Amino acid sequence: MKVGLLIIATEILEGKILDLNGKFLSDFLALEQLELHSSLTVRDNEVEIHRGLDFLLKTCDVIVTSGGLGPTKDDLTKEALTTYLGRTNAYSKEAHSVAEENYQRLGRSFPGDEHVYCFLPMGFVALSNSTGFAPGLFCEHLGKFIISAPGVPREFRSILNDHLKPWIQENYNPDLLMENVIIRTKKVPEEKIFGELDPSLWDKLTAIGDVSSLPALMGVDIGVKIKAHTKKELDQKKASVMKIIDDSPVKFSVWHYGPEKLEEIIVALANKKNITYGFAESCTGGFCSHRITGIPGSSKTFLGSVVSYDPEVKKNTLKVNQSTMETHGIVSKETAMEMAIGLTKEIGVNLAVSTTGVAGPSGGSPEIPVGTVCIALVGPGISTVTTYNFTGNREVLKERFTQAALLTLLEGLAQTGPI
Amino acid sequence: MKVGLLIIATEILEGKILDLNGKFLSDFLALEQLELHSSLTVRDNEVEIHRGLDFLLKTCDVIVTSGGLGPTKDDLTKEALTTYLGRTNAYSKEAHSVAEENYQRLGRSFPGDEHVYCFLPMGFVALSNSTGFAPGLFCEHLGKFIISAPGVPREFRSILNDHLKPWIQENYNPDLLMENVIIRTKKVPEEKIFGELDPSLWDKLTAIGDVSSLPALMGVDIGVKIKAHTKKELDQKKASVMKIIDDSPVKFSVWHYGPEKLEEIIVALANKKNITYGFAESCTGGFCSHRITGIPGSSKTFLGSVVSYDPEVKKNTLKVNQSTMETHGIVSKETAMEMAIGLTKEIGVNLAVSTTGVAGPSGGSPEIPVGTVCIALVGPGISTVTTYNFTGNREVLKERFTQAALLTLLEGLAQTGPI
Repeated sequence: MKVGLLIIATEILEGKILDLNGKFLSDFLALEQLELHSSLTVRDNEVEIHRGLDFLLKTCDVIVTSGGLGPTKDDLTKEALTTYLGRTNAYSKEAHSVAEENYQRLGRSFPGDEHVYCFLPMGFVALSNSTGFAPGLFCEHLGKFIISAPGVPREFRSILNDHLKPWIQENYNPDLLMENVIIRTKKVPEEKIFGELDPSLWDKLTAIGDVSSLPALMGVDIGVKIKAHTKKELDQKKASVMKIIDDSPVKFSVWHYGPEKLEEIIVALANKKNITYGFAESCTGGFCSHRITGIPGSSKTFLGSVVSYDPEVKKNTLKVNQSTMETHGIVSKETAMEMAIGLTKEIGVNLAVSTTGVAGPSGGSPEIPVGTVCIALVGPGISTVTTYNFTGNREVLKERFTQAALLTLLEGLAQTGPI
Repeated sequence: MKVGLLIIATEILEGKILDLNGKFLSDFLALEQLELHSSLTVRDNEVEIHRGLDFLLKTCDVIVTSGGLGPTKDDLTKEALTTYLGRTNAYSKEAHSVAEENYQRLGRSFPGDEHVYCFLPMGFVALSNSTGFAPGLFCEHLGKFIISAPGVPREFRSILNDHLKPWIQENYNPDLLMENVIIRTKKVPEEKIFGELDPSLWDKLTAIGDVSSLPALMGVDIGVKIKAHTKKELDQKKASVMKIIDDSPVKFSVWHYGPEKLEEIIVALANKKNITYGFAESCTGGFCSHRITGIPGSSKTFLGSVVSYDPEVKKNTLKVNQSTMETHGIVSKETAMEMAIGLTKEIGVNLAVSTTGVAGPSGGSPEIPVGTVCIALVGPGISTVTTYNFTGNREVLKERFTQAALLTLLEGLAQTGPI
């Protein structure tokens, strides 16, 4: 069963908003052992919607449409479906009551009989919307199926969860189980992994499943999509992938197996071991703390941070010696080390990570160019500091500095016993 | 001139990453008075790439492709273009030297003659990549044009800026000037703005241009797309829009005209007035600082912050009284106020903004539910504190808390004279 997505949204093509429904649908389908085949975004225009339906119906069995179901004049999805499928739009008692219930659920009274939501193309089903006013739509067309949901992410999600999920579970029997085994590496570029490090790795993994390689912030995420008829076969294939990595020099670059975010792994490990931590952030400017505090439960062991952008804050709050900054520079291993030590004293954490560097665009020098960062890690029996050189603009550099700092913290957590 | 985007990326259809290049291209084209006509995402598969090219070439004059230009086996864009256009792939001296320069720029030695980057379909031009290794591609086909860039957002952006922008400026003469006048409002919901506040606003603006209304983090961004034949006519239409807002009660909700980010406006204003500032962040967890430090030049007046996640950090570093937290609660106006005052003392800023609240999912209570935040602002002659209640999940709440804190800071900067 192939599923295609048609996003009907001029506002996305004009860059006013980012589409979030595509990613939701991909994740939603993966849970049902299905894949999103392709995704097309068109303008709120009847001809373009027709062209989009044409294109997707050629290869897909199920089309999900997003957007254009509201009551204003630029909402054209229902009209375009009606004309494309050659149906007639007419008053529908069922549609009326679905719409009325949507309004009631949100504590509003329904405008009445003549409302556009009471009209439905022949053969269509109106779908209740548990988080908004506009009903979704469902229809069959020459053995294929179209389900339309509003574009508002909350409503898109609830229509799919309430209606598409049970429909798939009733109508689709996956004959194949799928799983994407993900191997996360660090500090080695893509070319080197599949080049000098292990030239036969790609082919060896391909013998088991579809291989993909996705450059990540400080490394590469290797994916192997395995398919099997039984859970046992799936587990065997998974074990074969692990064995291949374990026999390869690439294993020394692996920092995690699985799709979890780095900050999720950190929060889980720190909470499990009861290790408290925090950051002395200069060039990362709060990004390390922001990523950690995005994870529920982080408050158990993340105590806090000092964002010491100005040298005076490094001196006064983190107790970095003025002479250290003068002799070695603000971006130096020595300053980074004193920042981390200062944080353990000021905030009383078990593990402290500090960052001091140049995110640019200005502030670089021949000795310390834009992209340089010194990262120190201080904890029980641990005291390390490393200088990295990255490339990129300010946004990218902040991301890379932060990723390097969080990977450093993860190493520290791995080395430290439960407290 | 119609422009279409073909995203070649299985990883996007599998939900592993969000596409950012579509939005970048939309914004990029708007600056050149062009619109993105449609956007299609297909899997890394030759047949699907061919189908995508077919679809887009039917209506578009220029196709931009994103992704699939790297050196691994799932990078199929060049191969698919070669077969689709019936060309021959051959060694190219030009391509070789472009690739070699890309490597040199990033401080790496180029692998040599046999590298895939040295081969190019006949009639194609290899494009230098100022931020990555893989060259871009450009070709003409039956009076239409295809430009291919890597999918990594940084590289996609630099290929478009370095190559597509000058090409458009040489080859395209817009007969209509376009501009999107953007009016940013806060603290009033969409239906109230166009309902009780000013029921005729939408129609009055529509008489001048295409109106759109986009709910933003703490308000609504109203857009009016105006078109004109001359710069003078454009300026007149712009003035008419401003006059309509100025005569409307909506003007009291406007915090900015234009598309700039809130943090850009803050950094520019603080630097202009030489006002130093910082944050005492609890529930925003570093996000306020992260947004500010994303802006070049922020280090001039942003001195630093304390992320005081743990109550002990509020007490020890920010000198919040234990009795204040016990009597009024950690999430209270009183605690927020003492946090902000503590920051001005600890870091010595002119303006301090603090946040203390409940981002969830746990930690809420009937009195202080998830979504509550207290935000204090302290500065020369300024001392205010406000409690807000928002809805959403942890991610959304952190965004809204942060937006409210930054809007509060902007108010403080506007009220404070140059220092």
